[in-house]
Amino acid sequence: MSQETGESLPETPAIIIDEAIAQANIARLQAHCDARGVRLRPHIKTHKLPRFARAQVEAGASGITCQKISEAEIMADGGIDDILITYNIVGDAKLKRLRALAGRLRHLGVTADSAATVDGLSSAFADEPRPLEVLVECDTGAGRCGVQTPREAADLAARINAAPGLSFGGLMTFPAVGDMTGVARFMREALALLDERGIACPDVSSGGTPDMWKAGDEDIVTEYRAGTYIFNDRAVVASGACTLEDCAVKVHATVVSTPTPNRAVVDAGSKTLTTDLFGQTGHGTVIGHPEAKVVGLSEEHGVIHTPKAGSFQVGERIEIVPNHVCVVVNMFDTAWLRRKDGTLEEIAIDARGKVT
Amino acid sequence: MSQETGESLPETPAIIIDEAIAQANIARLQAHCDARGVRLRPHIKTHKLPRFARAQVEAGASGITCQKISEAEIMADGGIDDILITYNIVGDAKLKRLRALAGRLRHLGVTADSAATVDGLSSAFADEPRPLEVLVECDTGAGRCGVQTPREAADLAARINAAPGLSFGGLMTFPAVGDMTGVARFMREALALLDERGIACPDVSSGGTPDMWKAGDEDIVTEYRAGTYIFNDRAVVASGACTLEDCAVKVHATVVSTPTPNRAVVDAGSKTLTTDLFGQTGHGTVIGHPEAKVVGLSEEHGVIHTPKAGSFQVGERIEIVPNHVCVVVNMFDTAWLRRKDGTLEEIAIDARGKVT
Repeated sequence: MSQETGESLPETPAIIIDEAIAQANIARLQAHCDARGVRLRPHIKTHKLPRFARAQVEAGASGITCQKISEAEIMADGGIDDILITYNIVGDAKLKRLRALAGRLRHLGVTADSAATVDGLSSAFADEPRPLEVLVECDTGAGRCGVQTPREAADLAARINAAPGLSFGGLMTFPAVGDMTGVARFMREALALLDERGIACPDVSSGGTPDMWKAGDEDIVTEYRAGTYIFNDRAVVASGACTLEDCAVKVHATVVSTPTPNRAVVDAGSKTLTTDLFGQTGHGTVIGHPEAKVVGLSEEHGVIHTPKAGSFQVGERIEIVPNHVCVVVNMFDTAWLRRKDGTLEEIAIDARGKVT
Repeated sequence: MSQETGESLPETPAIIIDEAIAQANIARLQAHCDARGVRLRPHIKTHKLPRFARAQVEAGASGITCQKISEAEIMADGGIDDILITYNIVGDAKLKRLRALAGRLRHLGVTADSAATVDGLSSAFADEPRPLEVLVECDTGAGRCGVQTPREAADLAARINAAPGLSFGGLMTFPAVGDMTGVARFMREALALLDERGIACPDVSSGGTPDMWKAGDEDIVTEYRAGTYIFNDRAVVASGACTLEDCAVKVHATVVSTPTPNRAVVDAGSKTLTTDLFGQTGHGTVIGHPEAKVVGLSEEHGVIHTPKAGSFQVGERIEIVPNHVCVVVNMFDTAWLRRKDGTLEEIAIDARGKVT
């Protein structure tokens, strides 16, 4: 789907992606990783668009990261042939889909953090001519998935290498923000244990946009996964990793009510901005109104308080930089791409809502 | 789209709607409103499905409530002919769509809380043979949209009646939860002012599922709008308006990791459950595990802490009653309907993601 609108702006609420900003963001992190000798494997959860995945690979990314098979299927349809799914793939239905996906790609990797997951993967891939690459997910402090100790990591790596149809692909972590030293400590210890056992570790993969400029600070990381960096958002601005001008996606909304001089209500609520706070106070930054705060959301209403009485008018169009852009992109069937020449193109968000 | 699966359950994450519970919920609130002499106008934002809108009307509802024109368009396609859009419709594109919608319906109403909105509606409907019904939205304490005083309400009602193409349809409020007396106080005063000016007020419309059993407690309300009551959720349970057994929608998820004996990670994250807390602590109630807490969500991970070590196993399927069911339904392209005979049917959520 593609439609020219020239100067007219889309009906609100809508998201507009500034292509020039997104491309500059792609180029900047790629250059940083290239300079540090770290491979960049962007996470497509932020844009959900094969066109941007291709742009990231063309810029030098080693491949992409997905969280779900359904996302990876869309990206494979879009011509991407090197995918890491950083997720425990569990259950017969998903294992069957994973095997079909592997047959379509030049390279596929997944992660695992338990014997149960590894054994399931092995049962699905035992008969495959090409082994599935499995990285061991390590919990270096984020408290989500991952083996808890370097010893567990080494044990699971050995189990992977011993399992029919699988090969150990390395160590992976989704780190706690700001804790690069925690990552390095865990990984060094795990690498030493692997070395003792004679198990080669092809990769150490870490990630996270807030810490992206530290990628390569610790010699140990060979691959970096970042997603949000392509668009950025209010939380990334707050982390200091980018400026408001580096934010490529704005939510366009219309003021539908000014019940009091200090309150405005816009047509972007939680079905647009989501209620993700992501460590922020309020629900976004209103461009051109630094004093205004998006204090509350219901599904179709965003409530703005402002100390500047009368500064919003019914019918006025505003732009909001969201707290967390990945989940906002997921709320829309289509986005509008602002090309470098200023024209707008409506594009389907192909991998929106892919949760399986 | 419709597909039989017999006994096999859908891949996770998925939502399953228990049809029998939903129908019992429809019948119970309708009977309550009938007994109180209050018309019920269900809000379809919860189910987003024409089939349930029709079931609500067949059970005795006077029509339905929508928040956006795009939702109303879907419901009109599905055979609903009496719709109230409780929203300020602003801007040429939306006014044009509103006019087209009016031509398809037996009855259409909208709300307005400002002269600017009323004037826009009048400019769009001035040439229409049938006037558009406009209710005045009153802020009785929720702090969202709405005129601030009964006098403003009366002034705006007069403006509506004087505006070509419009007729005053009554007073409407989205009240603060638990504040029925605030609603009654505001509305009585506004009705007195309307009476002084000789302006007939056809309706006083209030709503909200947590207070649904109080609909009719105050003689003044003629119409009640509730949405969540059809499915219910954890927040409604917490309000005391229903029990966990009255919750018709469960999120089905699979345990993908048990990194520690007291932590489990499931494949339902914020792209499934959303981060709406809705006044609750944690992100849902895990059926059969009352001691477990969904303590954190990222997009594809739900992190559960439990004091009962080892009570979750990788591969195990669990069911979660979400905090806020309306926004969860909005995250899925399809849902699974469990019929009374136990079979499952996959159905498209027709009005999902309709934000314009």
